[in-house]
Order: sequence, then C-alpha cells, then structure tokens
Amino acid sequence: MIRRRGTLFVVSAPSGAGKTTLCREARLGVPGLAYSVSVTTRAPRPGEIDGVDFRFVDEASFRAMLGRGEFAEWATVHGHLYGTPARALEEALAGGGDVLLDIDTQGAAQVRARYPEAVLIFLVAPSLRDLEQRLRERRSDNEQEIARRLTRAREEIALWRRYDYLIVNRDVKEAMEHLASIIQAERCRTARLGLTFPDLEVSK
Amino acid sequence: MIRRRGTLFVVSAPSGAGKTTLCREARLGVPGLAYSVSVTTRAPRPGEIDGVDFRFVDEASFRAMLGRGEFAEWATVHGHLYGTPARALEEALAGGGDVLLDIDTQGAAQVRARYPEAVLIFLVAPSLRDLEQRLRERRSDNEQEIARRLTRAREEIALWRRYDYLIVNRDVKEAMEHLASIIQAERCRTARLGLTFPDLEVSK
Repeated sequence: MIRRRGTLFVVSAPSGAGKTTLCREARLGVPGLAYSVSVTTRAPRPGEIDGVDFRFVDEASFRAMLGRGEFAEWATVHGHLYGTPARALEEALAGGGDVLLDIDTQGAAQVRARYPEAVLIFLVAPSLRDLEQRLRERRSDNEQEIARRLTRAREEIALWRRYDYLIVNRDVKEAMEHLASIIQAERCRTARLGLTFPDLEVSK
Repeated sequence: MIRRRGTLFVVSAPSGAGKTTLCREARLGVPGLAYSVSVTTRAPRPGEIDGVDFRFVDEASFRAMLGRGEFAEWATVHGHLYGTPARALEEALAGGGDVLLDIDTQGAAQVRARYPEAVLIFLVAPSLRDLEQRLRERRSDNEQEIARRLTRAREEIALWRRYDYLIVNRDVKEAMEHLASIIQAERCRTARLGLTFPDLEVSK
C-alpha cells in the first residue's frame, strides 16, 4: 500500500494563453483531481455559476476573509481581487487528494513560498503574435485593453523559469495531454510517496 | 524555438517485474525516444537479434572495451557482463534526442554519478507474491534459481528511493501510460529547456 499526501498543482498563464479552457478540460478529464473554487470580487460573466466557477463576494467580504487569514494565496488582477480559501485546500491535500489551482503569477509565488512541494505549471501561447491574435479573436477587449494585456503578458512570461513545467499551447488537446502527463508523472515520483510501502520495505 | 539537450531515461527493475516488455513497448510507442543497445557477454536467447536486442560479444572483447573506457555504465548480472556504449549515447543526447536505457541497479547508480540530470525510473511488481508468481509462470528457472532471483529482488527493491519515479506494474498498458507520462512530463520541465526561447525572453 502506497500512501501519499495530495499534490498541489498550479497553472498560471498570461491572459489569452488558454488557461481557462485547459483547466476546465482538466477538471473533467483528469481522474482524482479536485479543483479549488476561487473567491473573487469581480462580477460574474454570462454563464458563470456562483460556487462552481467562482465564489463571488463584495470587496468588504473579501477584505474581511483576508484579515482573518483565510486565503492560501490572493492577488489583484486587472483591478479585481482573487483568493484561494486555505482550509478546503489543506483538508483535501491532507486527505491525499490532488488539487488544481488556476491562479496568476503573484498567487503562484505565494503558493511556492507556503507549499514548497507544490508543482507549478506555466502555460504559454506559441508566440506573442499568437497571443495577440487570440486576444483579438475574443473580441471582448478594446485596443487599449489589448495593449495593456500584452504588456502584462510580457512581464509574466519573463517569470517562466520560476515554474517547474512549461506547456506550449499549440492546441488544447495536446496541451491537455501534457498537463495530464505532468499530473500522472508527479503521482509516480518517489519523493512524493509515503513510507507505507510494506512490500517494498524488505531491508534497509 | 525551444532547444534542449536530450534526456537520459533509465528503467531498472527486479527480474520478473516486466521491464523487458515495458521497454519494448516504449521503443515502439513513445515518439522521439531512442533505445541504447547494450553490449553483453551472455548468449543470445531464441529470437534475439545481434545489434538489435543486444550486441553479443565474448568476455575478452567486453574487457577490452571496458579497458578503453568505452562504457557509460556496466554491470555483472547473474554472472554475465552488460555495458552501455558511451559514445553513441552521448552523441544522441548532444543532438537533443532522448534515450532509454534498460539497465540494472548497479548500472543505474553509475549513470546517476556520471549523468546527474538523468531520470531514473524503478519498475516493481505490485507485491513480492506477484513477483514470485511471475517468475514461476515464465517456467524458465528452477526452484533454486527462483529463490536466488527473489533474494536479489528484495535487495534491489530496497533501493527504490534512489530512483526519481516508481511505476507499479499492475498491467502493462497502465505501466506503459505511466512511463509515457513521465517522459512527456520531463520534456516539459523548465529546468531542461535551453536558453533559446526568443519569444519568451522579453525581459529579465
């Protein structure tokens, strides 16, 4: 019997790299992977469900949670606050469950500091030209907003070496295979396997 | 453009764990993975082809190669000598190709010392009882030989923490998926990616 603590997987990406789609696929397609629902002060987008996609709160409630130390990580992104509730996360990990966090580079840095054994994955578009094209195809941002997102993307991409893994998102199916491989491989890492391995513990 | 040095993957296992089958599947099923043909002094088994499964040599030739420093690793297993030619291996890695070595625990220790960045994978049967059953099912060994192989298996299994990954071989399809995942994941590791990443190198 192999026993292990759950592993915390973090996916960060510049906006437009395809993170939301990839994480949605991973929630559906990777067995044994829990997804942490973030708390946010931004307004729900059409189709988003409170408690499923995010927990939507006002800024006063978010600040109160922050004051009570309820977040494992939190960040300000494009003027809105986002945070990961610590308690549910730590209960899942202690129970042996793997958890996926979809958070930005600021949050990832906090996770690294608080959970050094976390696995940090960075997702990028194949090039900045692709990224710009994807932002334009979304048709949700004006020119000024696109320029702002590209500037921020450049800053974030420069941090890629702080991550354990890099996935280049050429297409979502391939990126999903790479993410699933990373999760499966980490589940085989000897460093993550507990001491309870009676059949193998045959001698010193 | 991402450029990288090839990665050296090592699979070790106690005899009966299913290593030969797994490595054969990996040669056929994992794209971009070269297989290093070992040199051995043991006699070819029925169906084995010289230069494909092994390079078969006599002991004097093996010792001469050893004296000339031609092996990346070598070992004595069940009274026979086995070695991995260093030159072909290093040319493949330098050219960016990933290489799979199917070697025993002695050889794996030498590889770790010589190539610290190698990825060491240990394959085990689900239990010693399973291992014993598999050795009996092969019907190629007598009782004394089975006892000897089990003793050696216990010694080898005790070394599992020296490996980066552990694959429990419940069935060959699952074990193959785990091996392929490990190889794919290592290809995404930022620590293995070269500096030539112009689109990403947008600032310090």
